[in-house]
Amino acid sequence: MIEPDMALAARLFEQLHALSFDGTGITRDTYGAGEQRAHALMADTAQRLGLEIRRDAALNLYLTLPGRHRDKPVVMTGSHLDSVPRGGNYDGAAGVVAGLAVLAGWIRDGAQPDRDVTVMGVRAEESAWFPVSYIGSTSAFGLLSPQALSSRRADTGRTLSEHIGELGGQPEAMARGEAALRPEAIDCFVELHIEQGPVLEGEGHALGVVTGICGSHRYRQAQVKGRYAHSGATPRTHRQDAVVALAALIERLQREWRDLEAAGHELTLTFGQVNTDARQADFSKVPGQVSFCVDMRSRSVDTLRLLDSLLLKTAGELEASHGVRFEWGPVSGSQPAVMDEALQQALRDAALASGVQPRLLPSGAGHDAATFSNRGIPTAMLFVRNANGSHNPDEAMDMDDFASGVRSLGRVLALRAGLAGPHNRSPI
Amino acid sequence: MIEPDMALAARLFEQLHALSFDGTGITRDTYGAGEQRAHALMADTAQRLGLEIRRDAALNLYLTLPGRHRDKPVVMTGSHLDSVPRGGNYDGAAGVVAGLAVLAGWIRDGAQPDRDVTVMGVRAEESAWFPVSYIGSTSAFGLLSPQALSSRRADTGRTLSEHIGELGGQPEAMARGEAALRPEAIDCFVELHIEQGPVLEGEGHALGVVTGICGSHRYRQAQVKGRYAHSGATPRTHRQDAVVALAALIERLQREWRDLEAAGHELTLTFGQVNTDARQADFSKVPGQVSFCVDMRSRSVDTLRLLDSLLLKTAGELEASHGVRFEWGPVSGSQPAVMDEALQQALRDAALASGVQPRLLPSGAGHDAATFSNRGIPTAMLFVRNANGSHNPDEAMDMDDFASGVRSLGRVLALRAGLAGPHNRSPI
Repeated sequence: MIEPDMALAARLFEQLHALSFDGTGITRDTYGAGEQRAHALMADTAQRLGLEIRRDAALNLYLTLPGRHRDKPVVMTGSHLDSVPRGGNYDGAAGVVAGLAVLAGWIRDGAQPDRDVTVMGVRAEESAWFPVSYIGSTSAFGLLSPQALSSRRADTGRTLSEHIGELGGQPEAMARGEAALRPEAIDCFVELHIEQGPVLEGEGHALGVVTGICGSHRYRQAQVKGRYAHSGATPRTHRQDAVVALAALIERLQREWRDLEAAGHELTLTFGQVNTDARQADFSKVPGQVSFCVDMRSRSVDTLRLLDSLLLKTAGELEASHGVRFEWGPVSGSQPAVMDEALQQALRDAALASGVQPRLLPSGAGHDAATFSNRGIPTAMLFVRNANGSHNPDEAMDMDDFASGVRSLGRVLALRAGLAGPHNRSPI
Repeated sequence: MIEPDMALAARLFEQLHALSFDGTGITRDTYGAGEQRAHALMADTAQRLGLEIRRDAALNLYLTLPGRHRDKPVVMTGSHLDSVPRGGNYDGAAGVVAGLAVLAGWIRDGAQPDRDVTVMGVRAEESAWFPVSYIGSTSAFGLLSPQALSSRRADTGRTLSEHIGELGGQPEAMARGEAALRPEAIDCFVELHIEQGPVLEGEGHALGVVTGICGSHRYRQAQVKGRYAHSGATPRTHRQDAVVALAALIERLQREWRDLEAAGHELTLTFGQVNTDARQADFSKVPGQVSFCVDMRSRSVDTLRLLDSLLLKTAGELEASHGVRFEWGPVSGSQPAVMDEALQQALRDAALASGVQPRLLPSGAGHDAATFSNRGIPTAMLFVRNANGSHNPDEAMDMDDFASGVRSLGRVLALRAGLAGPHNRSPI
């Protein structure tokens, strides 16, 4: 195989860090200075490599090594270049760096693919800044809802449209649904990303092949309403205690989760925020209200439906037994995304050829790859082992693991793109 | 018996309402304009009735009908005149109005007690304004801790000392521990108060005789610490979920409470505030931290100790099973207070003589009566039925119930004070 340019990769990570370290962690704000600097670095690198550089209305970046047959569906890789506030250096960026390191190796060795290979620097994947998921990748397909353009960035209070316009993008074209990508013109999308959970680290695997991306079903503004009462003067049987009812719900659903796993279901269930009302709750009052959110995720729509029905059924029982009322508020979420079987197999083979035994695992987190998959494009993801989770300054990817990942990615891209090496040496 | 002056009582409630209605509820702020107006109204009323008027360093008000033997221990009644913000008209004030209505009846009929009878208008019972319990009654005995004088009022930010000084009190004398009351000079203290729970209302009793005042054991700033993690990427068995651990604690302690009651214990247990960290928690993160408070109350010190040990034991088990750590923060609370058996019996007899079958019940809420009891003074409390709880604008006491309460109180005060009626008519 052709060795990827790991020296370039190391340099890019260093430069990215220097460009976006905020004193505590990495901040590459969506459609702000941080993300912008990362895009400029990648475009500059592509120019030095001689890649074609293109941007769409949403300012996604496409860095293309032309193939011998430019009309054939393109092989795509890449990931996002924004980060959460005070996040880490690898979440997202690693996928773009990996793609460039692969192409740089090919260019160095004079290898040319049969068809175009494009590294995409996706905009705005993190929903920490704007309350919208996958802004960049959905915009690339012309599918961003026009209302999303009016959403406001959490810190600046300015609209997505304003932010994009200011950087030279075309929010009007986005509102019209103009698409930079057509599914039929894409052969496949393969995204390399750090694992955001502890599975690979915990089980000693350097790489993971993603078996599917979880969909979600969420109640982000749910409430339990009971009745405030004097904590000392109100006997147990007279209470309508919102906190006790919610505790019972959480506790019972933990048991349902365990049982569902025992029955073969894959899912996660999280009550990430729980808050009594600061204006009314008091240490000496039975709490009459508590707000909470529920995040349910699974690769299976059926599992999500089943879990949701168990949640609502349990809540109904608690309404009767505890004299409370659950109010669920708006539902949000996303569809699960299927990963292509052939690509999964190719990634497994590539990892093994790179000397790594990969673990198969679902992705509980969402990724731009889901957007490609849901457009019918053969899609796959490769996870690289990472300690301490993501979305924090402590995320920690070993460069050897990353090199194994980039080599595996390179093999699959070479296979799909029909890479021809110089002197008839196998490029794969 | 001598009829209390219920017309005066009705007038006083009307005037109190007019003086302290804030547009939503009743606000008689501790050592502020609201409480001050209520004290002025009671002093003014006492002056018209010809009672002796005295104030101590903490500005507690003592309204005394002189007895024939002024050296004998005094019979005392009364309650506090402050309220929580946007509270109701009866919590506290009813006990002062009741005392004045009794004495006004005696004065109208020319009856004189054998010993002094004093109606006390207690300052600062509610801890909503200053984070200190029973400021007025403990100060009357010279027992307020000097540090309490430096505590700050939640809304004004100014110290207790400043507030008292501004109204003409003597914070320096309070700091020196000067006492206006000596336990050996007090025959008894009987406090009438609305019930703050739903027991009398629920069971159809107009009056309740309090069997004891609960003590409390509190953790007002407890926390569970786990570990933040990605909600989609972190499997169930890898989580250190602070919210799930707290839910399990609350759920298990509910069962302990039920079991303790079944074994004959009387107690309450309340988790009144539960909050994830607004800066870190997110719907898409496993919660790594949650703050909460625990309020445990019982008439029995042993029950409090037992409940506390169950709480800590359960938390310890959850630390092991859930990978979290409980941090309890400072402990606060109060001692239970015993109610005098003879006075309880006298109140029961008096209620029956007034045509009401009283219910016996503990007071889960704290009251100034606890301060008197804990000084060794024979103490009792009479609860009047009240709908909708207290500490809110909807508290609702029926005037017929109140009249039964005032009559019962009057009988007991007359008995203890050795009231002699005119023309040898029994004053009791």
